[in-house]
Amino acid sequence: MSNQPLPAIAEDFSAWYNDIVYRADMAAASPVRGCVIIKPYGYEIWEGIKNALDTRFKATGHQNAYFPLFIPMSYLQREAQHVEGFSPELAVVTHGGGEELAEPLVIRPTSETIIGEAYANWIQSYRDLPVLMNQWGNVVRWELRTRPFLRTAEFLWQEGHTAHATEAEAEEETLQMLDVYYDVVYNVAAIPGIKGLKSDSERFAGALRTYTIESMMGDKRALQSCTSHNLGQNFAKAFNIQYLDRNNQLQHCWTTSWGLSWRMVGAVIMAHGDEKGLRLPPKLAPYQVVVVPIFRNDDERSAVLGAIEPIKKALVDAGIRVWIDKREDLSPGFKFNDWEMRGVPVRLEVGPKDVANNVVVAARRDVPGRDGKRTLPQEGLAASVSALLDEIHNGLLAQATTFRDANIHDVSTYDELKQVVEAGGFARGWWEEDPENEKRIKAETQATHRCYPLEQPGGEGESFLTGRKAKRVALFAKAY
Amino acid sequence: MSNQPLPAIAEDFSAWYNDIVYRADMAAASPVRGCVIIKPYGYEIWEGIKNALDTRFKATGHQNAYFPLFIPMSYLQREAQHVEGFSPELAVVTHGGGEELAEPLVIRPTSETIIGEAYANWIQSYRDLPVLMNQWGNVVRWELRTRPFLRTAEFLWQEGHTAHATEAEAEEETLQMLDVYYDVVYNVAAIPGIKGLKSDSERFAGALRTYTIESMMGDKRALQSCTSHNLGQNFAKAFNIQYLDRNNQLQHCWTTSWGLSWRMVGAVIMAHGDEKGLRLPPKLAPYQVVVVPIFRNDDERSAVLGAIEPIKKALVDAGIRVWIDKREDLSPGFKFNDWEMRGVPVRLEVGPKDVANNVVVAARRDVPGRDGKRTLPQEGLAASVSALLDEIHNGLLAQATTFRDANIHDVSTYDELKQVVEAGGFARGWWEEDPENEKRIKAETQATHRCYPLEQPGGEGESFLTGRKAKRVALFAKAY
Repeated sequence: MSNQPLPAIAEDFSAWYNDIVYRADMAAASPVRGCVIIKPYGYEIWEGIKNALDTRFKATGHQNAYFPLFIPMSYLQREAQHVEGFSPELAVVTHGGGEELAEPLVIRPTSETIIGEAYANWIQSYRDLPVLMNQWGNVVRWELRTRPFLRTAEFLWQEGHTAHATEAEAEEETLQMLDVYYDVVYNVAAIPGIKGLKSDSERFAGALRTYTIESMMGDKRALQSCTSHNLGQNFAKAFNIQYLDRNNQLQHCWTTSWGLSWRMVGAVIMAHGDEKGLRLPPKLAPYQVVVVPIFRNDDERSAVLGAIEPIKKALVDAGIRVWIDKREDLSPGFKFNDWEMRGVPVRLEVGPKDVANNVVVAARRDVPGRDGKRTLPQEGLAASVSALLDEIHNGLLAQATTFRDANIHDVSTYDELKQVVEAGGFARGWWEEDPENEKRIKAETQATHRCYPLEQPGGEGESFLTGRKAKRVALFAKAY
Repeated sequence: MSNQPLPAIAEDFSAWYNDIVYRADMAAASPVRGCVIIKPYGYEIWEGIKNALDTRFKATGHQNAYFPLFIPMSYLQREAQHVEGFSPELAVVTHGGGEELAEPLVIRPTSETIIGEAYANWIQSYRDLPVLMNQWGNVVRWELRTRPFLRTAEFLWQEGHTAHATEAEAEEETLQMLDVYYDVVYNVAAIPGIKGLKSDSERFAGALRTYTIESMMGDKRALQSCTSHNLGQNFAKAFNIQYLDRNNQLQHCWTTSWGLSWRMVGAVIMAHGDEKGLRLPPKLAPYQVVVVPIFRNDDERSAVLGAIEPIKKALVDAGIRVWIDKREDLSPGFKFNDWEMRGVPVRLEVGPKDVANNVVVAARRDVPGRDGKRTLPQEGLAASVSALLDEIHNGLLAQATTFRDANIHDVSTYDELKQVVEAGGFARGWWEEDPENEKRIKAETQATHRCYPLEQPGGEGESFLTGRKAKRVALFAKAY
């Protein structure tokens, strides 16, 4: 624990990120290469995201289930694109219970195959449809370079898997779940993501269409925050997921899958953090309010701590997550810096004068200095703090939206794209499917096709690269 | 889906169990040997247990964290008893990302070792203590014979891991968590478990003391419902978990671990089920109330379905989990049997006469036939159904307690123990640590030492086997 300044966010975003993750005690290095340990302060943010999603999944008729961690190698091979996409990243179990296995088992990199096999057994008739399931769990995609939350061999996520009678229903589900994600990204994490469709070369291995939410981080890079896939009949055909329709005809199902991982914790850090550290959106902050007692002697100490108890109770009763920082041997100033670094949305300072006047001093994490401070009466404090938390949510969202909009640039030539990418930001330009030139742009600029935003200008234009007619604009950016 | 009778519970408990698990759609076979798929109706019961525990863990100051799935083989070898205990059950990853690994990785069978290594890094001073963490996740203990929830290679559980400055604090924590488990087992799952201490030969590999809750199943066998381990300084010494005390002296920590798995779902099935199927304790039932509409023609149908909507709303608003069974082509009688098999605590029948009289007919799952039926006014229904759910919880608990007490028998000779074990039940007799004779009893009767109950008669007696002086009684039984 120290109050040393963080690496400068504007100069070395990556060092700033790593430092903050470890200093705010969100994660720790692990002895296993490729893996990190997620500590409580990071895990609680994930729990917040998880609860927000789980409630919405259930409200839209989905149920949780649990499928095996292990997948027979032969399953992955049934969907040609799928195995090609995932083979380089597999962890393989060859021994179990002291013996070599007859068929090696893969640790799930994602569960379309094993769930597809199960659905094929379970689904017989149109009466069994739709099947709407979700799984919370861990997956493994082999990886030796680690960045906490962003890149690890094992990560936690959810994966939804549904089966439908028609293509239209599958598409509706795919877009519904994109909207559910958007709701959480926007209204819970306070990140103004951009909904879009992936290009053919960026879509999920085995999918018909992949939708995404692309969010802009503080260094103007993109982070894919989730994906929702319309799998068409690809997996249904590979795994014989069939049903008898109302006319007693055998049909293949239409399936979808959709996932969001603890990457979102990384997105929260990088979308909102500043030079002082984290700035946590109130709905996800493990502590929404920290109370720092201020005193110079034992009498003041007992008066202040005595006054804080009923304040805490009132806030807790109103469902506000509160922490009283009673640490000894640390000055209030040190504590202020520490909690600013850890991103707590509201700091309440309580000293002897405040006790005498029945007030507290509230400081907003999102507005620095004096402008962010106000004196609040202790009476009705829960209501005023609740309102303040809403203001902070809106404040973070507004700042992130302004930042995002200032850093999306329309480009009409490749040179312009290069300038945008070089300076940082998302380049938006007319584009039609062109996998070869996507590769070239990536090789030459490191920028990738992020998505065709669902919100389009309409009409048509000319590809900024080839000049060919194009009906859609696409976003290009460097990405995590 | 069928209404065929289940296998007779009194004749073939094991067939009854398997049948019910699959027919109630709680689990399904998986293509991976040793693993099963947990379907929503089974998973939701686990979610109920999980939420009940998680709330209590947090209320007692624990925080959730997440540690890697993979453990280097060398870690397990550091605690001699631990590696001996778990070696035969390990799944081993030898390849990752297309290459052979330099050191094979074990999939965690439990996480004491990797968490011990982390704690050694994190803990420096007495100020860092206690460390109170919990992890929700999957573990693997290789197993080819499967029984859903009871015996699977991969299972879901939670594992708490704490570190303390003194032996007394570690023991207090170990017992506190046993009480937390007991609260959930008793007050949520309605199972009257027995708290006890494991014998030396039954305790966790590497622990000083293992506490358990042993519950009696419907076939009078025991099921270990959870364990709470005081690990002493064994893991602290193996992993160098040390702290500087107030006098600046380096000390080893005292650690604990405690776990409960989805076995508890199996316990719920086997403790409460009857010849008609499941009987779910109301606090864990995915649906607490099912409403079956009864009608003979379209007019009645629309009147009945119309009347059910406000009933549903009133119940849902009161936090009651309700399902309306609108399935077509199925008779009310078929539905009654189906929901009895699936163990829903309360069935509400609503027909045209009930609509005319502003009443519903409520049937309790725990009281068969006419005795379990009563007519309830629609006005104030949420309150009367809530009260009914409490009654059912208490009813299940009372029945299970009576059954348990009727099937624990005091024994004073080995022959008496053999008779009890043969007839079914727990044998209770004076016993002192005697690992060799425990082995003999197990070999000759299949019964194992379940625990020394924490509640003891006091005084002393003579071992029922050897006649040697003994200060404690122990329970012996066949177990899952």
